[in-house]
Amino acid sequence: MGSPEFRRDLVSGDWILIAGTLRGKRPHTFEVKKKKKKDDIKKCPFEDPQKSGNPFPLLWYPSPDAKVFEMENFKSWFLQVIPNKYPLLMRKEQCPAPEEKNFERKLTAVGYHEVIITRDHYKTIAEMTPEEVVIVLKAYKERYRVLAKDDCIKYILIFHNHGEAAGASLSHPHSQITALPIIDPDVSKSIKGSEDFYAKNKKCVHCVMVEQEIKDKTRIIERNEHFVMLVPFAPRVSYETRIYPLKHASHFEDLDKELFPSLASILKSAFVRIKKALGSPSYNFFIHTAPVGGGSAGHYHWHIEILPRGFSWAGLELGCGIEVVAVSPEEAADNLRKAV
Amino acid sequence: MGSPEFRRDLVSGDWILIAGTLRGKRPHTFEVKKKKKKDDIKKCPFEDPQKSGNPFPLLWYPSPDAKVFEMENFKSWFLQVIPNKYPLLMRKEQCPAPEEKNFERKLTAVGYHEVIITRDHYKTIAEMTPEEVVIVLKAYKERYRVLAKDDCIKYILIFHNHGEAAGASLSHPHSQITALPIIDPDVSKSIKGSEDFYAKNKKCVHCVMVEQEIKDKTRIIERNEHFVMLVPFAPRVSYETRIYPLKHASHFEDLDKELFPSLASILKSAFVRIKKALGSPSYNFFIHTAPVGGGSAGHYHWHIEILPRGFSWAGLELGCGIEVVAVSPEEAADNLRKAV
Repeated sequence: MGSPEFRRDLVSGDWILIAGTLRGKRPHTFEVKKKKKKDDIKKCPFEDPQKSGNPFPLLWYPSPDAKVFEMENFKSWFLQVIPNKYPLLMRKEQCPAPEEKNFERKLTAVGYHEVIITRDHYKTIAEMTPEEVVIVLKAYKERYRVLAKDDCIKYILIFHNHGEAAGASLSHPHSQITALPIIDPDVSKSIKGSEDFYAKNKKCVHCVMVEQEIKDKTRIIERNEHFVMLVPFAPRVSYETRIYPLKHASHFEDLDKELFPSLASILKSAFVRIKKALGSPSYNFFIHTAPVGGGSAGHYHWHIEILPRGFSWAGLELGCGIEVVAVSPEEAADNLRKAV
Repeated sequence: MGSPEFRRDLVSGDWILIAGTLRGKRPHTFEVKKKKKKDDIKKCPFEDPQKSGNPFPLLWYPSPDAKVFEMENFKSWFLQVIPNKYPLLMRKEQCPAPEEKNFERKLTAVGYHEVIITRDHYKTIAEMTPEEVVIVLKAYKERYRVLAKDDCIKYILIFHNHGEAAGASLSHPHSQITALPIIDPDVSKSIKGSEDFYAKNKKCVHCVMVEQEIKDKTRIIERNEHFVMLVPFAPRVSYETRIYPLKHASHFEDLDKELFPSLASILKSAFVRIKKALGSPSYNFFIHTAPVGGGSAGHYHWHIEILPRGFSWAGLELGCGIEVVAVSPEEAADNLRKAV
């Protein structure tokens, strides 16, 4: 990896820039050492969400090692889902109608914004047992299916922000689920890209890509019976990591529960590797799945994207949408493979 | 602004989300107080770029208040342009040829990456005299025109990162110019959007928008003879500020030098207002102009975008490309109007 290189994402058509060795170690006049910020657990509203004024959960699961007689007692909660107290979207009975005036086009942001909290303040997916990760996945699927029943909802995004650099306001591990009345720009573009490919090749673009990656091996990190973990050819950040089901499937919410342990195991492994290779960075992860409804789509393939955050997007990214990636995907995959 | 609202950008078609009052003041467990980082001027390689191992500049201008006899002496430099020592793009005589193998499509990142440095370590555009800002604009135009002569170059982006949160590695004020062998994703989308509008309406979409904004007044911050400063209807961040020429013009590099003082004055004013309203935030700004060559385009209208950075993009932005904006554009415009 001497020369800098543009790479084009097969699905979105976007270009990214893998910086070359020329970029080297630039000098920095900002002091690099960062003081570890104090994380005040006493102020954490997710330690006891109900005591902090939240309603009884929409869904809760006891700890997998709770004794049977404890399982009926809410005090044994391991995971709970509550409406976000500070939502980005508001509930309303009617679907919003687009408003147009001159060039202005808008839509009331009707939808759902929920928080999925696991109990332990310090236990991220990397530290959970595989059984605990299964419970997290179960909650994702369960809430997705409930929210998808609302006719206003066009797209549901499940995401997780970890650490301040990833935009998390609270350090307590929590995922979020947003049910939106629009199909968002990035998903629209991916859907369009994968539809175009399908129309031309009668194949799912993601299946083709995964198959080729498995043959190539250079960007594969790990593989189990049902899933594969890899660094994509054109990542958006250094060490971007993705998990794909090996068998074609367009909708995450249709995932058979038999496959939960396999997904939980590879997801936990991804975070363990990232932690070992990068030293507990902030990260975002999210599930990219086909839009709500519409039955099984031949062209789309759901997957999980994990974006470690050790950088700031600057002029080139914001000015023209070209994301600059410092570590080549092949090097990142190699480091993550070794990190066990 | 009670209800949260989706707004669609007229040109790109992207949706953004203006958060409502429901979002309120979320609690934060990360300690908010930030220690002012030490900025070590002694280590700054831009204090004396040649002493730090950079070549003699590609272009330099003396200080506008240098005496005539001093102007010939390089020691009077106010601005200098040097090749970036750690470039994102590499120089090469031939244009790069796209390489395709299976699904992988790539291109060697051939191009130019230059740095435009102004002398004073502490003087940003807000603190410069209007005459000094004119010199900065002059350098932008001059280097743009030189780099545009290379046949490999398809797009030139001039941008400026200020402050660590905006991705700057050095605090010394400097702009960057990148000359790219591709037309990047964001510009492609904007060009496509404005072409479509033009085909349908025989009008420049930006002209229509600016005219309507001037009629509406709510998002206008300031206006002079040749330029207008406003907050767009669908901004990407809180307090996004744009400057448009009032008269239709597709290419920044064709800007008549008679208009430089007018642009310098409104650009300086924008940074003074942002500083007063937000207290010296980090920011990125860049010039969006039509791709290199191709003559005057009826559909595109060059402009400057300023993005103050007081936030982190998180799951919703990265997961589905919907940017969440906390302060409504109308409120931001009002605060910036008052900030004088």
